[in-house]
Amino acid sequence: MEKSSPAWTLGELAEILGGTVSSHPHYIVRRPVPADSDDPEGIAFCESEPYLDRAHAHGVGALILPHSLRSNLKPAIYVEYPRLAYGKLLAMSQRPLPIGPGIHPTAIVHEEAYVSESASIGAYVVIERGARIEDRCKVFAHSYIGEDCLVGNDTTIFPNVVLYQEVSIGNRCIVHSGAVLGADGFGFMWDGKRQVKVPQVGRVEIGDDAEVGANSTVDRATSGTTTVGAGTKLDNLVQIGHNVQLGKDGVLAAATVIGGSSKIGDRVAFGGQCAVSDHIVIVDDVTIGGTSGVPSDLLAKGAYFGRPAIPAAEGLRAYLSVPKLPDMLSRIRVLEKKIRELEDKS
Amino acid sequence: MEKSSPAWTLGELAEILGGTVSSHPHYIVRRPVPADSDDPEGIAFCESEPYLDRAHAHGVGALILPHSLRSNLKPAIYVEYPRLAYGKLLAMSQRPLPIGPGIHPTAIVHEEAYVSESASIGAYVVIERGARIEDRCKVFAHSYIGEDCLVGNDTTIFPNVVLYQEVSIGNRCIVHSGAVLGADGFGFMWDGKRQVKVPQVGRVEIGDDAEVGANSTVDRATSGTTTVGAGTKLDNLVQIGHNVQLGKDGVLAAATVIGGSSKIGDRVAFGGQCAVSDHIVIVDDVTIGGTSGVPSDLLAKGAYFGRPAIPAAEGLRAYLSVPKLPDMLSRIRVLEKKIRELEDKS
Amino acid sequence: MEKSSPAWTLGELAEILGGTVSSHPHYIVRRPVPADSDDPEGIAFCESEPYLDRAHAHGVGALILPHSLRSNLKPAIYVEYPRLAYGKLLAMSQRPLPIGPGIHPTAIVHEEAYVSESASIGAYVVIERGARIEDRCKVFAHSYIGEDCLVGNDTTIFPNVVLYQEVSIGNRCIVHSGAVLGADGFGFMWDGKRQVKVPQVGRVEIGDDAEVGANSTVDRATSGTTTVGAGTKLDNLVQIGHNVQLGKDGVLAAATVIGGSSKIGDRVAFGGQCAVSDHIVIVDDVTIGGTSGVPSDLLAKGAYFGRPAIPAAEGLRAYLSVPKLPDMLSRIRVLEKKIRELEDKS
Repeated sequence: MEKSSPAWTLGELAEILGGTVSSHPHYIVRRPVPADSDDPEGIAFCESEPYLDRAHAHGVGALILPHSLRSNLKPAIYVEYPRLAYGKLLAMSQRPLPIGPGIHPTAIVHEEAYVSESASIGAYVVIERGARIEDRCKVFAHSYIGEDCLVGNDTTIFPNVVLYQEVSIGNRCIVHSGAVLGADGFGFMWDGKRQVKVPQVGRVEIGDDAEVGANSTVDRATSGTTTVGAGTKLDNLVQIGHNVQLGKDGVLAAATVIGGSSKIGDRVAFGGQCAVSDHIVIVDDVTIGGTSGVPSDLLAKGAYFGRPAIPAAEGLRAYLSVPKLPDMLSRIRVLEKKIRELEDKS
Repeated sequence: MEKSSPAWTLGELAEILGGTVSSHPHYIVRRPVPADSDDPEGIAFCESEPYLDRAHAHGVGALILPHSLRSNLKPAIYVEYPRLAYGKLLAMSQRPLPIGPGIHPTAIVHEEAYVSESASIGAYVVIERGARIEDRCKVFAHSYIGEDCLVGNDTTIFPNVVLYQEVSIGNRCIVHSGAVLGADGFGFMWDGKRQVKVPQVGRVEIGDDAEVGANSTVDRATSGTTTVGAGTKLDNLVQIGHNVQLGKDGVLAAATVIGGSSKIGDRVAFGGQCAVSDHIVIVDDVTIGGTSGVPSDLLAKGAYFGRPAIPAAEGLRAYLSVPKLPDMLSRIRVLEKKIRELEDKS
Repeated sequence: MEKSSPAWTLGELAEILGGTVSSHPHYIVRRPVPADSDDPEGIAFCESEPYLDRAHAHGVGALILPHSLRSNLKPAIYVEYPRLAYGKLLAMSQRPLPIGPGIHPTAIVHEEAYVSESASIGAYVVIERGARIEDRCKVFAHSYIGEDCLVGNDTTIFPNVVLYQEVSIGNRCIVHSGAVLGADGFGFMWDGKRQVKVPQVGRVEIGDDAEVGANSTVDRATSGTTTVGAGTKLDNLVQIGHNVQLGKDGVLAAATVIGGSSKIGDRVAFGGQCAVSDHIVIVDDVTIGGTSGVPSDLLAKGAYFGRPAIPAAEGLRAYLSVPKLPDMLSRIRVLEKKIRELEDKS
């Protein structure tokens, strides 16, 4: 596999990253690795002594260090901000999934769909009538782009994605494999005998620069639009219910579930496995710790945690008190007994 | 995209919905929208003053109102039950995903499979030996219908669904994209050294009029049958373990997990992200609030909530008490101190 | 469907299972079923009287019993260990999903990919450059095997699986439908204005004899490798974050979420819907009850339960105390009142 991977001498890499190399400028590295890697062709970054100790205890080939640290054991590149230099190296090491130019001969594109000449459409992709695939998009194998969907410029749709119908995805978005956008919202009415389906006729709109994780689901609105704002990133296995309005520049970690019609502001951050009830309002700049549940509106910005979610410091105290419950209960029993004794005496 | 969407004058629509129009009978609307929409071609419904105020504050084109309300700002259709009229409008606005008649030339249908002449089979669908696709079914692109599976009359299988083997789906069902029915139940035995797989040889049976949400999973039984009852609706990312018996006319909201061999009655309702342990019995007519956990049988009908799930009113009180835990703890400490003082005195 | 299923007389089956048959040696059974089945062609096993009573109350055709039990109502095979005999019967009843030898003519295999002559590649599979499909593998319909991926000997990839790139899967593994391995880890940095994507350039490695459940996701590492150890079994809808190191011979039940960079030992067992935070260390031989949350390291082997997860017996006591919270609160109020009265008196 090595044949296709890049390789740099430490000297070359130091120049690219704007750093200096202490020794062994001809040492060859091929990939960024974590500090606890044993890959002799890998280069890691360390920001502190403990980090450096970890790297020294492992076989990693070379290091990116700040000027304040020194390694006598491994060749190193010295830079001002190791983390930024490492980010640059990650970007250089990225290898996009392969896809040929144009429309793969096995792709089935409806004659009334539009595919930009600069877009790439993979094997066995199906694109329905009225869909638009804009400039430089990549739509990978086995994806289904339904009727009247829009895939904006420079957007990547990884293999096995389904967009039902009237799903609009902005520019520079990424939709990971297995994501399903535009499936019916979960709307039923009990008629006294059975659950009657409420027809779901709305749309999904994903803003520019958004990302949808693997196997995540964003339901179409009952009527109107389910919205994921520009720049918002959904992790894997996230569920966005019908008619949700999710703001801009948020991050929602894995397995978080947002109930129908909830309205969530900009720059929110959810840890993993959170749950938000239906019809909840959450304002801008709210951070919610992992595994929290939000049963009612959060109308002040800040950090929240817990089930129910309350301001994070209090939420954490409450969470850590749960294990003390049995002890509290027995202390209450002791108190009750002592009170009885004191009452009897007096 | 508008070319394919319907359009009505308010006068036409009033006649269809059995209502009267106050003014502007020639005003054209194209789609149902929520009351807070700004779509001038949209029509929303309002049931109360606050709803109406919301609509008035937005650009929605027209309204469906009960006789008890009046709009001076927007043209309106007046009906007895706005919600029912709106439901009728939703149904009229529904546009099914497109699929041609018959078997798409790229579909691979085993010669010993049966496909009704009135069924539609989409591009790249694979149908294995012994499978039966009954009348007027729609099986969309990229779905896999395994050996000896049955898809009943008028059932829709959206793109990218997998039915492993001996999965039987009733009439008038809907299976959303990414759903996997019939994967192996999660059965292993620790032999002292490693986890040994227990072969999973059972089936899955989905009753008539059921719905399975996007990316949900229903495992085949170890032996026997995993059952989802007629009329039961599963939301997205729901997991039904092996040998579960799920009754009729239930609704299970997103990310709910039902442990293996649990036996759940008819007309149950689960909020989102619930968890039911293995081998649990839940009787008919039980409602369980979102994020609840069910570690033991629920043998009386009614509403439950919490972790553990208990009768809902109590469960809610307990849930809302959790944030008070640190305060309770300090109050107990104060009491202990005061008791000591009183004891010392006496 | 019956034509393809096996059939045995009780006499034949007794011989195969090393048991004796009490009567009706010519009675024909076709499949293992649970004790509460009403299938007259099914055979169930019972280990105890209550089990046997259940079977007697149902229409199951025949039974596998230990020598200590006796059925007067149904023909039976008597063996030393009914559960083991039943497991053997399950294995005999297993019918693999069908796949032809070699590469299906519709599969698209890059000329620089390697597919063993003994492997089976299903319809519409896409295999990219540098991928290796080893001996006796089965890759079912619609799966995508990305660049430089490795699928080890005797491994089964069920329909609709996606391996992004540089995903390595060991020998004798099973990957269920809808699983996505190698999607980007969820890494972003807030630059003061928006979330900037941290490029994800690492790999995924799944050890020998592992199993990945339907619609589960295992993210590629930022750099380095996300690892699922040999023999570890993931249930459906499980999420393994980037750079996780998951040990050997573990079992993770459905909807469990492991946060990024967590390091988890060998022989762990997670119940369903657990959540582990990022950067957590969990040692070998830890068992965690369903719906637990792990916010900090677990450095001693043993059983844990709860949110937060603590030693299981304590965790269960705390969990069962939550419903008592409102009562505790009112008891504290009563105590406070009584103390005031006593203080007033003294």
